[in-house]
Amino acid sequence: MRRVAIQGGLGAYHGIAAENFFEEEVEIVPCITFRDIFTAIKKEPNTIGIMAIENTIAGSLLGNYELLKENKLPIAGEFKQRISHCLAALPGQTIHDIKEVESHPIALMQCTNFLDTLPGVRIIEHEDTALAAKDVAEKRLQATAAICSVRAAEIYGLNILARGIETNKHNFTRFLIFGNKWIVQEIQQNEVINKSSIVFTLPHTEGSLSKVLSVFSFYGISLTKIQSLPIVGREWEYQFYVDLKFSDLERYHQSLDAIRPLISELKTLGEYPEGRQSEL
Amino acid sequence: MRRVAIQGGLGAYHGIAAENFFEEEVEIVPCITFRDIFTAIKKEPNTIGIMAIENTIAGSLLGNYELLKENKLPIAGEFKQRISHCLAALPGQTIHDIKEVESHPIALMQCTNFLDTLPGVRIIEHEDTALAAKDVAEKRLQATAAICSVRAAEIYGLNILARGIETNKHNFTRFLIFGNKWIVQEIQQNEVINKSSIVFTLPHTEGSLSKVLSVFSFYGISLTKIQSLPIVGREWEYQFYVDLKFSDLERYHQSLDAIRPLISELKTLGEYPEGRQSEL
Repeated sequence: MRRVAIQGGLGAYHGIAAENFFEEEVEIVPCITFRDIFTAIKKEPNTIGIMAIENTIAGSLLGNYELLKENKLPIAGEFKQRISHCLAALPGQTIHDIKEVESHPIALMQCTNFLDTLPGVRIIEHEDTALAAKDVAEKRLQATAAICSVRAAEIYGLNILARGIETNKHNFTRFLIFGNKWIVQEIQQNEVINKSSIVFTLPHTEGSLSKVLSVFSFYGISLTKIQSLPIVGREWEYQFYVDLKFSDLERYHQSLDAIRPLISELKTLGEYPEGRQSEL
Repeated sequence: MRRVAIQGGLGAYHGIAAENFFEEEVEIVPCITFRDIFTAIKKEPNTIGIMAIENTIAGSLLGNYELLKENKLPIAGEFKQRISHCLAALPGQTIHDIKEVESHPIALMQCTNFLDTLPGVRIIEHEDTALAAKDVAEKRLQATAAICSVRAAEIYGLNILARGIETNKHNFTRFLIFGNKWIVQEIQQNEVINKSSIVFTLPHTEGSLSKVLSVFSFYGISLTKIQSLPIVGREWEYQFYVDLKFSDLERYHQSLDAIRPLISELKTLGEYPEGRQSEL
């Protein structure tokens, strides 16, 4: 069974996305922070990592891009996971008993409209949705509910008080799967590579980004994401995180050669097959 | 005196940035959330709002862009504030007494290296740096320190145990100042408008962004920031938040006319003078 390091506990969306990506059960290595995933991989080099990178509601997790760049572990693939939350509490509790709701800040944000229907309830931030559920279960917290996956509620023996409580039903999170080079090669065997994530720096922004994007356009390469980011230590200069889609890997490599003279510090975070999306 | 609504309490960086922007003392209207700032302005239409929009360490605050877009209050200007944190506790406490550190999650992230030198200390997330300081002071919390501005430590009578504890000394946050149209006009009187923040949607990303940026380039308009963002309800389609810089306001308006046929849903969040930056 594959070992997959995730931020969060059993029943976290990261683990669910990993199983959907591999289409089989995986062994979860729970980590406290995203950074700890890389430590877990260093300790056990055959471990695979999975990390949320963007969400249709909350946007990009920029810190996770930085971690991929720093740690030089290539991306093996992506999976777009539908995120549906439930409200879960100890058996015997009803929704009227709930005085506190615990969850990850992004999950809380995604359920704003539902939380507005529970007036007077205290909102407590937790490091992970599944660990919030675990906390409620293990500490036998009365009057407290967790916002988590149905899976987490089941694992920790909680009662589901409400399902599908996310405000927007088109709530997807894009996860990246990564690991050491040999693992990535094995995962990508027999797959068609048609996407990549790159990062580069532009010496000056006036017209220079437009030139780079024109080159990609001439080579028939599509842009599926772009994000400028201030460079730490060089205020208000920018680096660019870009996701590209292409049908011809060689053509894509040629386009990188073509933009190289126009940019600096080009790094490829990974070349991988476009990912599937879990159903609505 | 101008009334400025901020997220956070007295001594918060938002208030410091507001005073630096206006170069005079302001009356602070403390708000719990960024959304509450807009409610405060609705109640008192002469109130000005200020919001962090991006940080050289943590990246963009995408939710705040959404708030500006939804609420249709134009941007009056920007200020780039150097953020320097201190560790503050009740008088009599030494750094060796500290068992818990409270602050805003972004401030905690900015002080990671310093926090690593305090092993075994519990890190507690708080909604605001200044309110963390207030909490320590008002609840007479022993063994607890806040990470906050020197100003907040002084306001709440705390003792400063360490100064300049942010990991990166080039830690700047860009704040946007906004309000009702007549206030913005008054603030911008006699100022040269040379920047703007716009948001638009592209029907399809293949080559279309490259065309839009080429038009800006032909018109001599610089890009100082770009960010694609998934559109809620239309997964993996994108809208773009773009900051532009220009020397000729008319030329800039012409460039908007020129891109209009290439894009959809163009909205101008504000046209304003490029902001100053506080000293290092």
